[in-house]
Amino acid sequence: MPVKRQKWSKDFGEWFREVLINAGIMDYRYPIKGSGVWMPYGFKIRRNVLQTLRYLLDATGHQETLFPLLIPETALAQESAHVKSFEGECFWVTHGGFEPLKVRYALRPTSETAIAPMLKLWIRSHADLPLKLYQVVNVFRHETKATRPILRMREVATFKEAHTSHATFEEAEEQVKEALEIYKRFFDLLGVPYCVSRRPEWDKFAGALYTIAFDMLCPDGKTLQIGTVHNLGQNFSKAFDITYETKDGRQEHIWTTSYGISGRGIAAVLIVHGDDHGIVLPPIIAPIQVAIVPVPYKGKEEPINKACRDVACKLEEIPCKVALDLRGDLTPGNKFYYWELRGVPIRIEIGPRDLEKGEVTVVRRDTLKKKTWKMKDVTSAVQKLAEEMTFDLVRNASKWMKERVYRVDSLEEAKRLLAKKAGIVEVPWCGKDECGHRLEEEVEARLLGTPEDTEEKIEGKCLVCGEKAVNIVRVALAY
Amino acid sequence: MPVKRQKWSKDFGEWFREVLINAGIMDYRYPIKGSGVWMPYGFKIRRNVLQTLRYLLDATGHQETLFPLLIPETALAQESAHVKSFEGECFWVTHGGFEPLKVRYALRPTSETAIAPMLKLWIRSHADLPLKLYQVVNVFRHETKATRPILRMREVATFKEAHTSHATFEEAEEQVKEALEIYKRFFDLLGVPYCVSRRPEWDKFAGALYTIAFDMLCPDGKTLQIGTVHNLGQNFSKAFDITYETKDGRQEHIWTTSYGISGRGIAAVLIVHGDDHGIVLPPIIAPIQVAIVPVPYKGKEEPINKACRDVACKLEEIPCKVALDLRGDLTPGNKFYYWELRGVPIRIEIGPRDLEKGEVTVVRRDTLKKKTWKMKDVTSAVQKLAEEMTFDLVRNASKWMKERVYRVDSLEEAKRLLAKKAGIVEVPWCGKDECGHRLEEEVEARLLGTPEDTEEKIEGKCLVCGEKAVNIVRVALAY
Repeated sequence: MPVKRQKWSKDFGEWFREVLINAGIMDYRYPIKGSGVWMPYGFKIRRNVLQTLRYLLDATGHQETLFPLLIPETALAQESAHVKSFEGECFWVTHGGFEPLKVRYALRPTSETAIAPMLKLWIRSHADLPLKLYQVVNVFRHETKATRPILRMREVATFKEAHTSHATFEEAEEQVKEALEIYKRFFDLLGVPYCVSRRPEWDKFAGALYTIAFDMLCPDGKTLQIGTVHNLGQNFSKAFDITYETKDGRQEHIWTTSYGISGRGIAAVLIVHGDDHGIVLPPIIAPIQVAIVPVPYKGKEEPINKACRDVACKLEEIPCKVALDLRGDLTPGNKFYYWELRGVPIRIEIGPRDLEKGEVTVVRRDTLKKKTWKMKDVTSAVQKLAEEMTFDLVRNASKWMKERVYRVDSLEEAKRLLAKKAGIVEVPWCGKDECGHRLEEEVEARLLGTPEDTEEKIEGKCLVCGEKAVNIVRVALAY
Repeated sequence: MPVKRQKWSKDFGEWFREVLINAGIMDYRYPIKGSGVWMPYGFKIRRNVLQTLRYLLDATGHQETLFPLLIPETALAQESAHVKSFEGECFWVTHGGFEPLKVRYALRPTSETAIAPMLKLWIRSHADLPLKLYQVVNVFRHETKATRPILRMREVATFKEAHTSHATFEEAEEQVKEALEIYKRFFDLLGVPYCVSRRPEWDKFAGALYTIAFDMLCPDGKTLQIGTVHNLGQNFSKAFDITYETKDGRQEHIWTTSYGISGRGIAAVLIVHGDDHGIVLPPIIAPIQVAIVPVPYKGKEEPINKACRDVACKLEEIPCKVALDLRGDLTPGNKFYYWELRGVPIRIEIGPRDLEKGEVTVVRRDTLKKKTWKMKDVTSAVQKLAEEMTFDLVRNASKWMKERVYRVDSLEEAKRLLAKKAGIVEVPWCGKDECGHRLEEEVEARLLGTPEDTEEKIEGKCLVCGEKAVNIVRVALAY
């Protein structure tokens, strides 16, 4: 189990902001509100998380591309629901040098309308389909809500967005399923527990037939949307008149989907496994997997340092990313603090007694429990411990979240749980928008939507109108 | 030697534009002038080129980061020479949603003024120095000249910019040398020949003490700037008041450098090795290193395909990136054309006769010459051929460029060579700005600057004033 989590749970916002800057992940003091700097250590974590995501996408036939940042207002306006939702939160470029532009450009809030004009050029026949593209870019929203580092930015510096084109509705539906599987696998690999819900009609992506979203639970009991998958139907293909020739020579509009994960996907790992000592990184995404710290003893400095170097060499051959911390100006205690804050999964200490016995002292970051190992077994022991720790991180995070999902069949109970920020509340629902809206008002929380991750049949009555429930609906305080 | 290069040399602009779109590298038909789309195949080339560059930077202690896109006008304006040069070519964000912004934001034209405010927060003491950061981002220039795909964009989608901070002028000078070595090594690895010149005063980066630039020669005899290194002195540190505490407790302004390579670094490889069949990729950056094409014969399709599959399996173990082209709707001729256009270094064909003899037919992309190999030797032969080809590409490109650099000591000869776009002309120069400007007017070309890649002493007289020359100066038609 994780160690001390007082600040983590009681003052999550402050904990997160501090850990980001103190661990060298993101500096949020950039002179524009809602913009931050990915610092070197944070950038490495980001690189590893994105590599995991790229791997999953490449392996399923997605091709990486890079589309322009700027979208002409005329293109953004081509799909009416889309522009209506986004125009009020776009940043607008109006001048090039000293000259006003003839058409304003939006900084992409998402890229459907940047990609559509190109799909129109690229797709001619059924042989060009399916076409599965993605890109990792920055997107912009002029948020009016309070911004928060990574969680709510005006420049979302990291946005992986996939855009796929298909010949039929059925194929687009299959693609939605594939996207859900990819995202599940992604979050599973990072040990981030989630629930998957179909958003209510009024909360779907602007221009989509429907939206399915991944939500995680934060330490303060609020949920965070960490991934979305949209079936866009023919809304964009009709707006941009993107057609293909079918096998029997007819012209049909294509069917499209899009799905995205932002920097929140990185934040999620930092949040769910964290504690009052800092972040805890699953070995798979840790820029440094083992930190080696000598515990010097007068007169034995050199043999101790040598033993540390030997262990580092052995581990690098696994391969394993090692930091050999021989800094002379810090005490061992300072160094422990430094690596704990940064979430390095395994720490190896070698002191005079270890040296005598041919042992090393090992501390795993999640539990901070100590063990000793024979020095000669160090490589196999590191591999084994990394596996154990990965497993435990996943299990503990899942357990933590499960304990905070409540099945409830009274409005009062739902209200009570949400008022004390207990977590996610599931209630029976008749499925009518009207009752959904009423429910949100009554419990002062948001409908995450109906479960997409269970097949369970629901018994019971809608908490609002009392009619027979057709589904469960999840309700939570949401970021 | 490269094969046919008629279109490549006579109609370079058209050749490049066509090859970019036909080979699936960049589509330039995006609805904003000067913006293009990196398509899947082009994106893979880009990824490999950037990986080479990242490798060289990481290995020399540079740390990757990511700074925001938007720069407040107030920050951009803090270094006076800098803002004067850039304000007229920035794109300006003036509105967030429906509201005008209080301070306009520039889309970064380069990031010195985005990074400076953070350096001020991060750097406290000599122990924080040197600090060597880099990022790979998009930058924006509202070009008024005619735009060209990759070569002159308004959205430069690929810009690797490094920014370093130092305690002394001497350390910054050393850093400039390291940067030059890194860039030389980078272009050498890509087989791109270049000359390195110190730009004249009037052509240095706005805010720099001096600028040293890498130029390559295009098929049309014009040069293209493909990399720049700037010693920024204390210009930015004084403008932003970035100081550090020295070992003896004084506060001093830091010394900074910056250096960048844009998408032109990728274009360079495509250009220098290209021919009328398409691009030719050095194996190190080729997304596909070997294309295997069966040449079917009635009744022998399956044994031929099987032999192709076997060869593919063997090669993938090297490891080597292989495309096994079993598409049924294309003739072998179509496939040859397809892979030649895309610059795949090695093509292996297997036909009925090859199969009988236990051989394969091999075609290297640069010369299009055929050979036969024993099937059992295929892995070692591929490795050897890839090495040979890499070597030949470098040698031929260097030879091609060297033949187009002229040492000249009369104004008329310089004029004549530049009028017929013969290449780069080197002339003796007294070093005075006045004569430099006159020279540019006389020969209707641009001064690239004085050589930084040779120590050679110059004899002779300035072609303009007739006084003793102190240096060579390079002159060329430049993009």
